[in-house]
Amino acid sequence: MGSTTGRLFVVTTWGESHGPALGCVVEGCPPGVALDLDAMQHQLARRRPGQNKLTTQRKERDQVRVLSGVFEGRTTGTPIALMIDNGDADSSAYAPFAHLYRPSHADYTYDQRYGFRDWRGGGRSSARETAARVAAGAVARQVLGAVELVAWVQQVGGDEAEVDPSTVTAEQVDASLVRCPDPAASARFEEAIRAARADGDTLGGVVRAVARGVPAGLGDPVFDKLEADLAKAMLSLPAAKGFESGLGFRALSLRGSEHNDLFEPDGAGGVRTRTNRSGGIQGGISNGMPVELSVAFKPVATLFREQDTVDRAGRAATIKARGRHDPCVLPRAVPVVEAAMALVLVDHLLRFRALRG
Amino acid sequence: MGSTTGRLFVVTTWGESHGPALGCVVEGCPPGVALDLDAMQHQLARRRPGQNKLTTQRKERDQVRVLSGVFEGRTTGTPIALMIDNGDADSSAYAPFAHLYRPSHADYTYDQRYGFRDWRGGGRSSARETAARVAAGAVARQVLGAVELVAWVQQVGGDEAEVDPSTVTAEQVDASLVRCPDPAASARFEEAIRAARADGDTLGGVVRAVARGVPAGLGDPVFDKLEADLAKAMLSLPAAKGFESGLGFRALSLRGSEHNDLFEPDGAGGVRTRTNRSGGIQGGISNGMPVELSVAFKPVATLFREQDTVDRAGRAATIKARGRHDPCVLPRAVPVVEAAMALVLVDHLLRFRALRG
Amino acid sequence: MGSTTGRLFVVTTWGESHGPALGCVVEGCPPGVALDLDAMQHQLARRRPGQNKLTTQRKERDQVRVLSGVFEGRTTGTPIALMIDNGDADSSAYAPFAHLYRPSHADYTYDQRYGFRDWRGGGRSSARETAARVAAGAVARQVLGAVELVAWVQQVGGDEAEVDPSTVTAEQVDASLVRCPDPAASARFEEAIRAARADGDTLGGVVRAVARGVPAGLGDPVFDKLEADLAKAMLSLPAAKGFESGLGFRALSLRGSEHNDLFEPDGAGGVRTRTNRSGGIQGGISNGMPVELSVAFKPVATLFREQDTVDRAGRAATIKARGRHDPCVLPRAVPVVEAAMALVLVDHLLRFRALRG
Amino acid sequence: MGSTTGRLFVVTTWGESHGPALGCVVEGCPPGVALDLDAMQHQLARRRPGQNKLTTQRKERDQVRVLSGVFEGRTTGTPIALMIDNGDADSSAYAPFAHLYRPSHADYTYDQRYGFRDWRGGGRSSARETAARVAAGAVARQVLGAVELVAWVQQVGGDEAEVDPSTVTAEQVDASLVRCPDPAASARFEEAIRAARADGDTLGGVVRAVARGVPAGLGDPVFDKLEADLAKAMLSLPAAKGFESGLGFRALSLRGSEHNDLFEPDGAGGVRTRTNRSGGIQGGISNGMPVELSVAFKPVATLFREQDTVDRAGRAATIKARGRHDPCVLPRAVPVVEAAMALVLVDHLLRFRALRG
Repeated sequence: MGSTTGRLFVVTTWGESHGPALGCVVEGCPPGVALDLDAMQHQLARRRPGQNKLTTQRKERDQVRVLSGVFEGRTTGTPIALMIDNGDADSSAYAPFAHLYRPSHADYTYDQRYGFRDWRGGGRSSARETAARVAAGAVARQVLGAVELVAWVQQVGGDEAEVDPSTVTAEQVDASLVRCPDPAASARFEEAIRAARADGDTLGGVVRAVARGVPAGLGDPVFDKLEADLAKAMLSLPAAKGFESGLGFRALSLRGSEHNDLFEPDGAGGVRTRTNRSGGIQGGISNGMPVELSVAFKPVATLFREQDTVDRAGRAATIKARGRHDPCVLPRAVPVVEAAMALVLVDHLLRFRALRG
Repeated sequence: MGSTTGRLFVVTTWGESHGPALGCVVEGCPPGVALDLDAMQHQLARRRPGQNKLTTQRKERDQVRVLSGVFEGRTTGTPIALMIDNGDADSSAYAPFAHLYRPSHADYTYDQRYGFRDWRGGGRSSARETAARVAAGAVARQVLGAVELVAWVQQVGGDEAEVDPSTVTAEQVDASLVRCPDPAASARFEEAIRAARADGDTLGGVVRAVARGVPAGLGDPVFDKLEADLAKAMLSLPAAKGFESGLGFRALSLRGSEHNDLFEPDGAGGVRTRTNRSGGIQGGISNGMPVELSVAFKPVATLFREQDTVDRAGRAATIKARGRHDPCVLPRAVPVVEAAMALVLVDHLLRFRALRG
Repeated sequence: MGSTTGRLFVVTTWGESHGPALGCVVEGCPPGVALDLDAMQHQLARRRPGQNKLTTQRKERDQVRVLSGVFEGRTTGTPIALMIDNGDADSSAYAPFAHLYRPSHADYTYDQRYGFRDWRGGGRSSARETAARVAAGAVARQVLGAVELVAWVQQVGGDEAEVDPSTVTAEQVDASLVRCPDPAASARFEEAIRAARADGDTLGGVVRAVARGVPAGLGDPVFDKLEADLAKAMLSLPAAKGFESGLGFRALSLRGSEHNDLFEPDGAGGVRTRTNRSGGIQGGISNGMPVELSVAFKPVATLFREQDTVDRAGRAATIKARGRHDPCVLPRAVPVVEAAMALVLVDHLLRFRALRG
Repeated sequence: MGSTTGRLFVVTTWGESHGPALGCVVEGCPPGVALDLDAMQHQLARRRPGQNKLTTQRKERDQVRVLSGVFEGRTTGTPIALMIDNGDADSSAYAPFAHLYRPSHADYTYDQRYGFRDWRGGGRSSARETAARVAAGAVARQVLGAVELVAWVQQVGGDEAEVDPSTVTAEQVDASLVRCPDPAASARFEEAIRAARADGDTLGGVVRAVARGVPAGLGDPVFDKLEADLAKAMLSLPAAKGFESGLGFRALSLRGSEHNDLFEPDGAGGVRTRTNRSGGIQGGISNGMPVELSVAFKPVATLFREQDTVDRAGRAATIKARGRHDPCVLPRAVPVVEAAMALVLVDHLLRFRALRG
């Protein structure tokens, strides 16, 4: 249940942070899709820690193996099993915390839900699980074909970048160490992250994403509206605490006459909206304009500072992180947001096919 | 598919705004629950238009009939069918718009998805559908028992109220014409809504909600985290464009050391957090603290002003609303948000039971 | 859960035998299908009791109302709600059994599952629920278009008819009082049913069905093989206890060399099999040949004879049926089997569309 | 979709016969279950080919690896990933058939569904996939605890054994080379299989199974009746073409008065039925008596004889098997039927928990 997403393009992820491996099974992928493994590996590399001096220095190779569902380079329509070896994880940095609850982490709640937990590296609650989503998302992107998906870091802490969603490119994003295509903001974000690290502290922020070329008609009212499924996908990411479709909360100072997107002929026999405050979705269904969303990630919970907490027996204790951890997950969250978005879009594309033939 | 929600407490809604009736089927409700029909009818009355001079003056009786699944006042464990007659709807106000696309409504996207649409009263895309959710939510609340669910209007336009989620009550909320338990803000909100109506214009805002007494352990990582399912439920509501779990976007100016919720003994042998910035959910699982969320609703799209648009043939046209429409849906959205929250919580409660016995 | 079937053409039924009404919601029906209500009503009439002197004399009108999902005669792609009023049911014949368990009925098991039950007319366990399936099946048949679905009574008690599945027609079936298109067997079956009734006893038998014109490629290995979903659909019918795909158990006296269906060119550029012992399904996927299946229905459990049983307190008691009951459900099961088959086929047709576009 | 089964105990299998590996993901397994890997390996050994001279001589080691979801020997409640390496498969025996359709195999239908297929070893349609089900079933059996599951070979070709379902044991079954606990029948079955092999021919038969100790109340009317889900599980097995719950087709010569299972006090304050013709299921719900079912497997399609067929271009051709193949799959189907039954039972056990707490 909880480790599966999608109705027709169905992805099940599995694996713990320090278990032997992690991976996913992709069901419902149409047959005959040429699978570009280099593209998949590229996305995994973008998510990988240790890419530069701002992110954690842990080494993860994240080499993906395709165990089924592909024959002579093309998907066969049967389940695609993808596996990534974890290598020999060193769990010793976590051993002192086996009986402590890290504040604002999932330790306590996993114990409440399951009775006990695999504490090594955070177990199933580790963000390492998103590697499997990125691999599945790479399959989805190849099914989506011409849809252009770009995410970037829009905000770090309270500071915002200026980025035009209608033109921003993946190249511009990846040219920045912090994946912010606004060079001035990129420099400020770098500096803010460095400062937080120096204080043993952490920062949150906003990833924004756009999908250009999404056909009109995707989204299944009333419960599976496109933005509802996108919201769920984004809030299922580690540390995500907020979601906006189009302007979202930023629309609230506008009146209806300022917010409505007026229709006009597009000059090619079709229709477009003059503005895109709705973020490409109206009534829960895509309208052919770029789909735009934002995700708020809370400040990282792992601090290199002493914090009050309790142990498994409920006694007061203190805790301070060891090992290597990102002071800000935003740059690495970019490919994860893109993958999550791709999975939702491809699922709704197949649902549309089923409905309309 | 799209009209069904829940894994174990499964609700399917049906019906168009001006069809003969609308309703829902609730599957998976545990047997033996005494069903309080007055409580259900009370929630429907809270959602109904025409409650006061700030909301639309349409008359909807919304009398619910229980067609199955209840015997001698108790649920039997079989599907509960609930139906609300629409009465004789007058579709004449919509006839001029049968061939026009109302800006920022679902007319255009429904045509793109389905090829045509039932234009009477907005058909399936009308917010009238939420009456069925409120009815289902009333069943859910009776299964949830001691959980206290309270939603209120937190913001109208750019103006915010001050409300303490740990103490706010339904009585305080309903004492306000605009369902804002902060009396000063309530007065300002009323005035703002009146001013917008006078201009033929509309306003958006924020509904905030809290659930007190939610047991720890609810939520199913990784995709069905409790906040992921809450986000989906909220973004599936008409006009919803944003979601926050706990502080959400408001956390971003904080560093980790300011945002983390530290654990402490609760003095009764258990554990609590000193603060509740996480909104009762950590790692996607409830931690026993109050579950808190916010939903952004965009300004109402229906304006009593001339707007540019196109017709079904793609030709430029203009449009101006007729009939009766709310200038601000926030007050009536309050019971809908509560119902949506109840449906997610009860589903996860049953999922927890399945897992832990 | 248990009252819902289908992945893409999703049907949820609701209603008790003596409740105010019963019905279903059909989700995922493609838009634009002209809905023939007379055809639906015709199928309901075929299922209705009291059609002739061999079946029970209860009067059920079974007039179906379409409450949503249809506009100007065509499906809109939104949920189709269908409702059938039960009229004023007289539950007095059941009152003596409210505290007794009818042998081989669902009374005892419903109490075990739900803690209590609606005993009026058998409640949810009554075969009356199949009226909702027949209504949903009528929608499915209109989506299936050219597929020819014919079921008939193949066997009553130990006596078998001879019917050619490749040519049998609905008209031939309905020309027989017992829905057996083999006139000699039809006469024998009538006589056997009369004799059983005279003894206060009952009979079981076999319904066989064929679907001609099913396209190749339907069925989703490995768990949702076409014959797996057909088996489930058939075993979910009241009193069904056995299922055969193609020859089924009748294949067992054959060796592989006698059972295999050899391929040959079909003379029109395609391929067919020389025989059809597989019943149109190989590897769980339709092969373009007629899909053939058989369903065994046990003898009716309701007897007009004294039987030993126990009461709700577990004390020995005796029981004897009152009111009107069929001594053999086979003739009325024919349209129900057709409906169940149609629901499976249309679901897999939509699944194929999603996969192959 | 098609490779996933279960609502709460959800199993997804993946893998092709000659791909690098196959496996499954088990979701929804309750936490804290001590996982007995030896028991799992034992069941895999029972399914493995090459166990004796009556079955194929291919060597498959089928060593299962647990990649996630287990910590310190107990299930954690997170997805359990199981993998079995295929070793270095030799596909050369299949190369001549890459462009031919083996009669009554899935080659033609896979091409019709997917457009092409992985022909090596039968690809996804190979019965090798059932190894993953057996592994998942071994997990299910450990959750089921005290339920005793025993399957056996009841019939080979037209010849039947006599076995008492209320007393038969796994030891008696495994003492027979053909897994038939009736020694006289076992000897006849062996001889029949040898004779068929000598002729390059094959045989079908019946596997019967019983589950003793299943609690009353399992099964979810109306569509997910216990026997409906069992029927689906069994018809999803390779070569399965028939299913019986309780007496099934064998009930048809009985009248109702001969078939009904009369209730009686069980002498311990409870209730039982005097007979068990219903096979432990009434109204689709278990009644506490042993659950009994039968599965018909068609004669193996792979023949060491020349057969007519066509090639992918639709031209007439002939075909004759090479390599090693069972002349009768029944003995190896026994652990597969047990696993399939365990998966259905455990899913319904968890569903019951969700409903009743």
